[in-house]
Amino acid sequence: MAERVCIVGSGNWGSVAAKIIGINVTKHEELSDEVYMWVHDELVGGQSLADIINTKHENVRYLPGVALPKNVVANSNLIECIQDATVLVFVLPPQFLKEILRRMVGHIRPDAIAISLIKGLDSSFSGIRFFSEVIEELLDIDVSVMSGANVASEVAAESFCETTIGTRVYEHGKLFEKLFSTSYLSINVVNDIIGVELCGALKHILGIAAGIVDGLDLGGNTKAAIVRIGLMEIIKFAKTFYPEVKKETFYESCGIAEMISLYYAGRNRKLGEAFVKTGKPFNVLEDELLNGQKLQGPVTIQRVYNHLVQKEKIQLFPFINTVYQITYKAAPPDSIVKDI
Amino acid sequence: MAERVCIVGSGNWGSVAAKIIGINVTKHEELSDEVYMWVHDELVGGQSLADIINTKHENVRYLPGVALPKNVVANSNLIECIQDATVLVFVLPPQFLKEILRRMVGHIRPDAIAISLIKGLDSSFSGIRFFSEVIEELLDIDVSVMSGANVASEVAAESFCETTIGTRVYEHGKLFEKLFSTSYLSINVVNDIIGVELCGALKHILGIAAGIVDGLDLGGNTKAAIVRIGLMEIIKFAKTFYPEVKKETFYESCGIAEMISLYYAGRNRKLGEAFVKTGKPFNVLEDELLNGQKLQGPVTIQRVYNHLVQKEKIQLFPFINTVYQITYKAAPPDSIVKDI
Repeated sequence: MAERVCIVGSGNWGSVAAKIIGINVTKHEELSDEVYMWVHDELVGGQSLADIINTKHENVRYLPGVALPKNVVANSNLIECIQDATVLVFVLPPQFLKEILRRMVGHIRPDAIAISLIKGLDSSFSGIRFFSEVIEELLDIDVSVMSGANVASEVAAESFCETTIGTRVYEHGKLFEKLFSTSYLSINVVNDIIGVELCGALKHILGIAAGIVDGLDLGGNTKAAIVRIGLMEIIKFAKTFYPEVKKETFYESCGIAEMISLYYAGRNRKLGEAFVKTGKPFNVLEDELLNGQKLQGPVTIQRVYNHLVQKEKIQLFPFINTVYQITYKAAPPDSIVKDI
Repeated sequence: MAERVCIVGSGNWGSVAAKIIGINVTKHEELSDEVYMWVHDELVGGQSLADIINTKHENVRYLPGVALPKNVVANSNLIECIQDATVLVFVLPPQFLKEILRRMVGHIRPDAIAISLIKGLDSSFSGIRFFSEVIEELLDIDVSVMSGANVASEVAAESFCETTIGTRVYEHGKLFEKLFSTSYLSINVVNDIIGVELCGALKHILGIAAGIVDGLDLGGNTKAAIVRIGLMEIIKFAKTFYPEVKKETFYESCGIAEMISLYYAGRNRKLGEAFVKTGKPFNVLEDELLNGQKLQGPVTIQRVYNHLVQKEKIQLFPFINTVYQITYKAAPPDSIVKDI
């Protein structure tokens, strides 16, 4: 039977995924031509967004101006979307994930597999957790992950880029490659889910640190030093808590490529810079600069810091500690060069 | 007997080195307080630059506004400068190196040691060569190297940065650390001269590639992909021709830190961008944009390309080949994404 894909999420990255997958499924017999996209119910100009997508074949709200393939079918009924799907693509803001997963429990196919495009970290009593773990735990299915230097608007414009898929099942990697690979999106599959997850999450801390350096006008040499020191600490974090992570993963698109790219031009960088220049807290800046959109930088710093404190390792991670002290404990921003 | 330092060169980076070394020598008994700086004879406002430096304690031509320690003694007589020196610091434009070395032959102390701050590659009939090799060959002394994300003006302003010293003699590394280490310049010593040299030279190719991507307005995702692909090829180049190079060296300041920094904001990047946008050859652009200053990017591309052709390995290095074809063989600039 043909694989049937459901995209759980319809923001800008979700809509780009729908565009790519919608085209790719038509090229392979073993993939069903119809691609479902779950759309969170909302009205745009008095009309349901799902209906607009199904008639205009465009996500006018989150990816305006980009045509979606006609075989992408939007639906705001979650259960209808997922119940026949054999492949679930999770691409939604992390704060909504668990609520959606709970609604899915008992309604998915037992042979379904998933891939998470969510970048960030969850936390629990026992320390940090990855969103792929959360999906796996609630749905009891195999989950792969995808992460890379993939700003949605640029992928939508078909600018060349790369991405990394982490999986533990070779055949799942092959299937996801079929779903996502295009002439402008080059995919590397690695057998290292945690490495891909760690890169995608910890880069947020680097981004905030970049903003602190920029906010202090410290210049390119200092910025280069801080990215190096931060990267070393991220790798040390991986080695300390996840010794199975492969060093090579840091050389993938999900690793240095995205970390560096966002270090020089990301939203967390912008937030960190404004934090230093204005002294306003992150939530106020998110309202002022990002229309209230929540970034993963601040919460990732906090979760990673808590994890290190709980594991009694914080003194071994001066970079992470210093970024935390600056952003949450009113330490002077220039401790970013003095204390690490 | 106390070690006596001579700085061979007095450009902006040489003058910053003089500032740092001039202060550091006074802190250690085993280092002579007097630091010589060889100054290429030139007149500024009708007066010898060496005389101005010795009276004003400022290199008004190449590092204006920065006070040099009074124990830095400028001299335009090369032989007088070097004949008593036990430590030679080479920091001059590579195109002048061999001529200077030839003049030094027979006049240096046999127990002298050297460090090269020159970033680039030489070439010979047998392929590429490092400037540290050239120094070693002509003077028959041990040569270490220093390289990192160290834009001279920012180091002069005492912004925090890091640098990497590569040496094969542990004690030499310790001595150079004493000479260069300050509160704002953090030094890592590694036992891998070739790794440090390779990073310092091949980063120029990445810089030109960055400019090509920018000139085509390809955006951040593409730029991230190209830096990753380029970095992978640089590491492959090292492994292929210099298997003794340590992977860890790429994680030093001389490695990813500087490569990335210049990829986003370096002069070779600027040159590559102008090359794509104007179609003018490099030498014309160097005149127009850089007051005729010669960058190492164009010549490094050519030398590395020639090396690969000679060793019959060019087909294994599509990134380097493509950058060469675009810059020297009028290949279309967008082959940077199509051919690699």
